[in-house]
Amino acid sequence: MTTHVRVVGTGLIGTSLGIALSNKGFQVSLEDPSPTAVRLARDLGAGRLAVEGDAPDVVVVAAPPDVASRVVVEALREWPGAVVTDVASVKESILREVLASGADASRYVGSHPMAGRERSGAAAARGDLFDGRAWVVVPHPASSATATDQVTHLATAVGAAVRVMPAHEHDEAVAAVSHVPQIAASIVAAGLRELPESAVGLAGQGLRDVTRIAASDPRLWTQILAGNAQAVRDVLREVRDQVAAVVVALDGLVDDGGEGSLGTLSRLLEAGNLGHARIPGKHGAAPAAYELVSVVVPDEPGALARLLTDVGAAGINLEDLHLEHGLGQAVGIAEIAVVPASVEPLRAELERLGWRVHD
Amino acid sequence: MTTHVRVVGTGLIGTSLGIALSNKGFQVSLEDPSPTAVRLARDLGAGRLAVEGDAPDVVVVAAPPDVASRVVVEALREWPGAVVTDVASVKESILREVLASGADASRYVGSHPMAGRERSGAAAARGDLFDGRAWVVVPHPASSATATDQVTHLATAVGAAVRVMPAHEHDEAVAAVSHVPQIAASIVAAGLRELPESAVGLAGQGLRDVTRIAASDPRLWTQILAGNAQAVRDVLREVRDQVAAVVVALDGLVDDGGEGSLGTLSRLLEAGNLGHARIPGKHGAAPAAYELVSVVVPDEPGALARLLTDVGAAGINLEDLHLEHGLGQAVGIAEIAVVPASVEPLRAELERLGWRVHD
Repeated sequence: MTTHVRVVGTGLIGTSLGIALSNKGFQVSLEDPSPTAVRLARDLGAGRLAVEGDAPDVVVVAAPPDVASRVVVEALREWPGAVVTDVASVKESILREVLASGADASRYVGSHPMAGRERSGAAAARGDLFDGRAWVVVPHPASSATATDQVTHLATAVGAAVRVMPAHEHDEAVAAVSHVPQIAASIVAAGLRELPESAVGLAGQGLRDVTRIAASDPRLWTQILAGNAQAVRDVLREVRDQVAAVVVALDGLVDDGGEGSLGTLSRLLEAGNLGHARIPGKHGAAPAAYELVSVVVPDEPGALARLLTDVGAAGINLEDLHLEHGLGQAVGIAEIAVVPASVEPLRAELERLGWRVHD
Repeated sequence: MTTHVRVVGTGLIGTSLGIALSNKGFQVSLEDPSPTAVRLARDLGAGRLAVEGDAPDVVVVAAPPDVASRVVVEALREWPGAVVTDVASVKESILREVLASGADASRYVGSHPMAGRERSGAAAARGDLFDGRAWVVVPHPASSATATDQVTHLATAVGAAVRVMPAHEHDEAVAAVSHVPQIAASIVAAGLRELPESAVGLAGQGLRDVTRIAASDPRLWTQILAGNAQAVRDVLREVRDQVAAVVVALDGLVDDGGEGSLGTLSRLLEAGNLGHARIPGKHGAAPAAYELVSVVVPDEPGALARLLTDVGAAGINLEDLHLEHGLGQAVGIAEIAVVPASVEPLRAELERLGWRVHD
């Protein structure tokens, strides 16, 4: 029997999910307050329009975070046989509101596909959005095993890697690995608004990396931060205290060249080294598992392709690639990450072929 | 007449500069407190060892920031005919100490090549390190035009793009675009040290970008921050106040769901959008000048090369490339940046060749 999934909300996530599930043979029906948005989603292959009398097995609420709990409760009441989930980036506040509503929460299990783009809306949707991404499934003491299984089944069907954890654990985790980094990036970027042009002109790759996510949608992120206010606040208080401690250390250096201040700075930088080393790399591998080989690449059509063809022909798997561009000059550096055992063979082969290699 | 450049300090920057200048036909002599380091630099082609009686035209002090001014003063005294520069990341404190020394400061002009790597030491040196990078030249009221010209000449010879600005302007600029972002990245990364493994496992590309420079050398960065304490402190005070304001806004949401708090969050996120938009992209172009085309790439040797070969064969210049990897699955997304006019032709050609393309 084909599973019938109702997708409520045809923005980026809802439409992408509709496309992915339809591709996998699910029956998908679509619903959105905007008739234009829902028709666009249908035309993109996300499913059929909802009709009176639909009886979905699973309802996925892909509404904005600030209305998600209301829509979940409505769905639990409208379809007494359906499992209901949502895809919002915060989980505890929604769960609390669902439990408080008196609706049958045994059929509700929250989820959070860790997939997104800097663009939003159905037009940005893609059926492979969840391919290989983490998808957190969030059961609670009152939810049924069937509900968890159904949601896990959907997530797995669209290629996501499921992680199961309770709501508070999810919210604390994303506060640290996603929401507070977003605030930090926005604050650093906001500080660039009033800089003279000559100063902004000195920006390098470091600043670009630190502030990339500062380009994210303010409306969506206001809701995400508000929805996870407590966990974000707790992590951010530590950040505030750390920043204040560095300001005090710098004050000490300005006023009296105080030697104690150096210890504060160096301990922070070392702590940053240690924290950074914990972040998993590609496919969850430790970042230390790869080494970089740097190759000078002329900035002309096909040059990078030639390089990568040579890497492939050498039988070496490229694990990651980062381009560094010069300023106003026609060369770049391609940094190729490979397993340590491949560094020497790769270097030798590329040099033989005339590439300028560094490591 | 061949210009004779003395490089004092054969770490990453000094050795790279020696190699680059030697390649351009300069006579380079090398000096370092460590006999091992200076011999390694010589063997890497950075120049010859210094000998008694050398009379350099230009002396480049590539010593650590905390000893740079002392070494500059020694060089001004040892070679009364030479122009002297240094390459430290902070400029005002060094200039102040040089002026206070009573040495002939008319022959001193500071500089700051905006080039570096996460690795350090002569072994990491490369002759193209300055290719296309900004190189700030920092004259002062007492310096001679000849000194500025000589330093500019060196920087240009090794391929750098020279920007001339006074010391305080340089220090304020790098505080905002480099030093404070370093502190922010280190603080966010430091917060990851105590997280449970399951939380770190949810880290995505956003966190990786925000914290990449948290892997930098703590010893070097302690000196850099201490050397620019005042300018960094001034920018960091604003960051501290912003973080504190966000904590207060989140407190308001936790305590009473206060609507006023949403305005604080949304204004910060919008300010982040505006600041981010000011950062120049590749070759100083505005980031908005390029659009992204996303292509699904199987994670197998040669696949990315095939894709880039197809891009090159379509006659389209790839402006930038970013790889997004899935978690535990054998596909990735290559995001190709091209000029807007190339988006449609590229998409059509790649789809014709069987690639899965999104934008």
